[in-house]
Amino acid sequence: MSAATGMKRAGAKVPVKTMARCALLVFASLLPAKAAPAAPARPVLPLMPYPSSVKLGVGEFAVNNGFGVVLRGYTEPRLERARRRFLAVLSRETGIPLRREAALNEPNFFIETTGPSAKPQRLGEDESYRLEVTPTAVHLRAANPLGILHGLQTFLQLVRVTPGGFSAPSVTIDDQPRFPWRGLMIDVSRHFMPVAAMERNLDGMEAVKLNVLHWHLSDYQGFRVESRRFPLLQQKGSDGLYYTQDQIRSVIAYARDRGIRVVPEFDVPGHATSWFVGYPQLASAPGPYQLERRFGIFDPAMDPTKESTYQFLDSFIGEMAGLFPDAYFHIGGDECNGKQWEANPRIRAFMRAHSMTTTAQLQAYFTGRVEKIVAAHGKIAEGWDEVLQPDTPRDVVIQSWRGAASLSDAARRGYRVLLSAGYYLDLNESAAEHYAVDPFAGNAASLTPQQKQSILGGEAAMWTEFVTPENIDNKIWPRAAAIAERLWSPESVTDPTSMYARLATVSRKLDAYGLQHHTSYPRMLRRMTGGSDPEPLRVLGDVMQPPELYARMRLGDYDVFTPLNRLVDAIPPESDTARNFLNLAETLASGKGTPEDWRKAEQSLAMWRDNDARLQPMLTRSQLTADLGPASTNLRNVAMSGLQAIGYLQRHRATPRAWRTSQLSFLKEAAKPQATLVDMIVPAVTQLVEATRPQ
Amino acid sequence: MSAATGMKRAGAKVPVKTMARCALLVFASLLPAKAAPAAPARPVLPLMPYPSSVKLGVGEFAVNNGFGVVLRGYTEPRLERARRRFLAVLSRETGIPLRREAALNEPNFFIETTGPSAKPQRLGEDESYRLEVTPTAVHLRAANPLGILHGLQTFLQLVRVTPGGFSAPSVTIDDQPRFPWRGLMIDVSRHFMPVAAMERNLDGMEAVKLNVLHWHLSDYQGFRVESRRFPLLQQKGSDGLYYTQDQIRSVIAYARDRGIRVVPEFDVPGHATSWFVGYPQLASAPGPYQLERRFGIFDPAMDPTKESTYQFLDSFIGEMAGLFPDAYFHIGGDECNGKQWEANPRIRAFMRAHSMTTTAQLQAYFTGRVEKIVAAHGKIAEGWDEVLQPDTPRDVVIQSWRGAASLSDAARRGYRVLLSAGYYLDLNESAAEHYAVDPFAGNAASLTPQQKQSILGGEAAMWTEFVTPENIDNKIWPRAAAIAERLWSPESVTDPTSMYARLATVSRKLDAYGLQHHTSYPRMLRRMTGGSDPEPLRVLGDVMQPPELYARMRLGDYDVFTPLNRLVDAIPPESDTARNFLNLAETLASGKGTPEDWRKAEQSLAMWRDNDARLQPMLTRSQLTADLGPASTNLRNVAMSGLQAIGYLQRHRATPRAWRTSQLSFLKEAAKPQATLVDMIVPAVTQLVEATRPQ
Repeated sequence: MSAATGMKRAGAKVPVKTMARCALLVFASLLPAKAAPAAPARPVLPLMPYPSSVKLGVGEFAVNNGFGVVLRGYTEPRLERARRRFLAVLSRETGIPLRREAALNEPNFFIETTGPSAKPQRLGEDESYRLEVTPTAVHLRAANPLGILHGLQTFLQLVRVTPGGFSAPSVTIDDQPRFPWRGLMIDVSRHFMPVAAMERNLDGMEAVKLNVLHWHLSDYQGFRVESRRFPLLQQKGSDGLYYTQDQIRSVIAYARDRGIRVVPEFDVPGHATSWFVGYPQLASAPGPYQLERRFGIFDPAMDPTKESTYQFLDSFIGEMAGLFPDAYFHIGGDECNGKQWEANPRIRAFMRAHSMTTTAQLQAYFTGRVEKIVAAHGKIAEGWDEVLQPDTPRDVVIQSWRGAASLSDAARRGYRVLLSAGYYLDLNESAAEHYAVDPFAGNAASLTPQQKQSILGGEAAMWTEFVTPENIDNKIWPRAAAIAERLWSPESVTDPTSMYARLATVSRKLDAYGLQHHTSYPRMLRRMTGGSDPEPLRVLGDVMQPPELYARMRLGDYDVFTPLNRLVDAIPPESDTARNFLNLAETLASGKGTPEDWRKAEQSLAMWRDNDARLQPMLTRSQLTADLGPASTNLRNVAMSGLQAIGYLQRHRATPRAWRTSQLSFLKEAAKPQATLVDMIVPAVTQLVEATRPQ
Repeated sequence: MSAATGMKRAGAKVPVKTMARCALLVFASLLPAKAAPAAPARPVLPLMPYPSSVKLGVGEFAVNNGFGVVLRGYTEPRLERARRRFLAVLSRETGIPLRREAALNEPNFFIETTGPSAKPQRLGEDESYRLEVTPTAVHLRAANPLGILHGLQTFLQLVRVTPGGFSAPSVTIDDQPRFPWRGLMIDVSRHFMPVAAMERNLDGMEAVKLNVLHWHLSDYQGFRVESRRFPLLQQKGSDGLYYTQDQIRSVIAYARDRGIRVVPEFDVPGHATSWFVGYPQLASAPGPYQLERRFGIFDPAMDPTKESTYQFLDSFIGEMAGLFPDAYFHIGGDECNGKQWEANPRIRAFMRAHSMTTTAQLQAYFTGRVEKIVAAHGKIAEGWDEVLQPDTPRDVVIQSWRGAASLSDAARRGYRVLLSAGYYLDLNESAAEHYAVDPFAGNAASLTPQQKQSILGGEAAMWTEFVTPENIDNKIWPRAAAIAERLWSPESVTDPTSMYARLATVSRKLDAYGLQHHTSYPRMLRRMTGGSDPEPLRVLGDVMQPPELYARMRLGDYDVFTPLNRLVDAIPPESDTARNFLNLAETLASGKGTPEDWRKAEQSLAMWRDNDARLQPMLTRSQLTADLGPASTNLRNVAMSGLQAIGYLQRHRATPRAWRTSQLSFLKEAAKPQATLVDMIVPAVTQLVEATRPQ
């Protein structure tokens, strides 16, 4: 099966969009929102996700050495750890050495908790909180520690530097989530992520109130958990890259401290090659098996006809059910192509004997058996939308990845559902595109209120074909924060302009949590240039984006050993520079540009034009940049086209038709990926050329 | 005692140099080295410290996915850990996922070890290695693991990106250190450094072949080790910021893995206020005592007349001798001002009874007693140069900090000595200044070869009045690498131009070890601007330096709680931009500038001139930048002066005498610190103005 057809799993959107369309979508979403009668006031504080109720007061609460945070009411060690972690983040953010011992200062920040939350944390627990900030004191109140954890994060977002020092504005915030299940899925099979990388991202999740880590622990390319009952799973299925059970427990404890549930996924019956290296008898064709090194969809699948398969799974799931305390257990179930089943006479005979005519029916049989095993171990099964079959038990949670239609269909049939279609971070879409995807939109809009209740929320998904521990933060953050807001904030909070403004703030704040999305990019640039000043490379990288995932797959021959050390791996998935320039170009094209706007646009275009001459001599010195020449030239040419268009627009001169036609045709060509990179300035320059008046 | 007089300890150089002189020193050291007949060829590979013998071959050894590193001959777990760590660093540096399992690839990198090294590591062990790189294989050979560790670091420095990918040049290197004791002292009392910060810096030490961590664990401001015999030391003397004994053991093991000894320092009888908070009976005046929050020299000192003091120290040193395996044990001994002793009638009576006329004699008595205790616990005592008295036992190691004279004096008297004078990183001197300090120079030049043998080496010292876990990497690195080269490389390796070129490479490479000297600066800038684009602030910061330590002390009222979150805390101690511009100005002033040189200088000066207008509106928005206005204006004015000078020089026009006089007088004024910052462009512009031809 070719990579091009085998990528549904890794890239959820069908059909593949062209980059030009993609860019126009970004553009459209950035236009100021039309003022609808019921539109809420634009959020005024840099909070994300934006709370459900914000009432601004008068004055400021100063954050300085006199800060004294105390716990009142119900308490537990987790709350004391949260208090210290809160002070540590605030100290890193401000540079103020805040005293960790509450006794050292007069209390002026009161945390009041009514009672405990469940252990393990349960879906649908009360996560609400009230945060009152006045010039003299802060009161944070919640029914249980979950609300306290969220409220502390809101306060951290309120703090900023002013002429008077660090402070938070007086405000009263009442807040609770719109959806109870707000997840981030991380695939640690295609590229293993060490505990430190998981912890960093749990810190990021806490910051934006995501509350489920969906841990994709096994797939073709690796089995990442120590099993004591079946040790060949990790010994032969992981290249030595797996979590010990102690590490798993420590990550779960780390997550619980942050109000985050951990749902493990062991993907069966397909996506399971890594199991078969140690236990080939589980597969539907004889072994031996090797770990899969390529990406795509592959044939190996568990044998659903042998009782020994279910005995193995019963024992394995029993072990894992003890290791992972969460009530939910994800069994995958996606993209089993059935080819091994069709090729096996014994399995064909089994199908005939059970009156099955399609492999989908056989998979439904398998899924039913596995769901019973999961239930027997006290867990609720969850699966990708393929697991939804006529006989699927009603308590199974369906995770919709193939499109929003499957979400509403399942909800209509009475299943509880999660939306992931539209939230795939590996597709390199913009934050605005993810932000525009609402679980209640589309077909779901026609659901009854009760059916809507069964939409539990959604999950951002980070598949890791092109993601390593080095760049994972950069690929997840800050975009995941926009999805977090979609799942937490009121449905009416939708303005992408406001979202982007607040996203920039939260992104900067995540630095103080130790996330590396800002630091990995310059470090990778320095690696690429091998010591030369990476500035001209940064100028290029700042306006580039990786192509949409499928497109990259088609552009190269990748496997798990491919070094991910090129510009495409270093840059953020979304170019802030390009988005801002697109806004500027739109202003100019609409005739509303100020002289300062014209000057800024000209300066930027001249910089991009001139960058090529500085960059080209550097590129050939390093293998990691040798293929960037065409992209740099392309940027120069696009910038020159933009400068010409600006010249015509400024002088209000009509343009020769031939020039306009040739430019537009050049720009169409220039929008195609160069060296796996997309020049994000093209849509803006296209706007400018189109705005010129033809003769 | 005032801060101004109490800073000898924290700042070793006497007398205080003016910044103008300091800048000229930098300048002088950057002139191309005069070609002396015996001068060695300039180092051609970016290695630091430069090896004693380098023979270049032909061709390149490629570093790629096929890399296979194997251990041969003697082996031990530490070597296997070193192999894996080597692959991890190389993988982070290159972005290539190197397989950790040696079995996966054909071996092409052979590590051959003859036998074990001592445990604990001993002073003077064989650290030599031979590294042979050919296009097909690498052979690293050493008598024991210490040489292997050093050779692996040399190989890491050889690797760079080329048009053909990552590779190392063919070369044969024979290498061994010039001095057996190459240390870095870190003060964790004035500001506590968590284990993670210690580990990062141990990684940096390994990279440049430093082999002693001198851990300054107690002082006025904090006692940082858990004592089980005297738990009030850490309970009352640390604000909760101390290392548990398990953490100490783990840092020692971490250091041993990297070929680094750990020598603890417990500073007595002065610098000991933190002991007295829990145990006031140790002091020479009645308590109670509080932790000292200020910086300087203070009166409290241990009572040398009471037997109970020695009983306490005997028990305490016995406990610590078991915790720290190294043969050496540092007892401080510096800056005891004797005031508490003079004020205590009982102590005065003791002195009379023992025919002592000075408190120095009393301290000598105390030191002698403590040295015997240290020896009784099987350790060799080490002390700052004050411990050298007429009766000091011959095996005590003297650490010279007050000047090179004390080094040669002690060596002449037969003591083994270490040089720290000239290597104080907190003084904010340039790498070139430290680099120019040789243990065999000055008075030491006249020592006999045997006396020279007793110079064991030296130690860089990082006192932490103005250093936090956030900026410590930036204050130590890369300058400590220049000191490491002075202590490792042949005496003849002295060219500062070559040093700076190689320092830039090693500094960049340290990123892959996890050091944060490159990442803390931009992060701290973003904090200061509170989200605005920090670029104009960076332009200012890039040409600024912190003033020499004493000068900063005089400019503000600091204590351990002062937030260190200003520009002066964020910038590196040495401005690369300023140094490079000084070189350029020198070229122009000497009449040897190319048109490109003139253009570059003009561009830089125009940028600094124009930066002020962009920066000023930002500065007032944040308390952390509010005091930077004068520094920014100063930079603008200095740049304008430079532009005028360039105008005269380019047109070969004589300058009006009045202009020249007024400019030079302005520049003298402009060289003074503004808001604790020194404008490092001033010396360069002064060069340009002085180069103009007066009428």
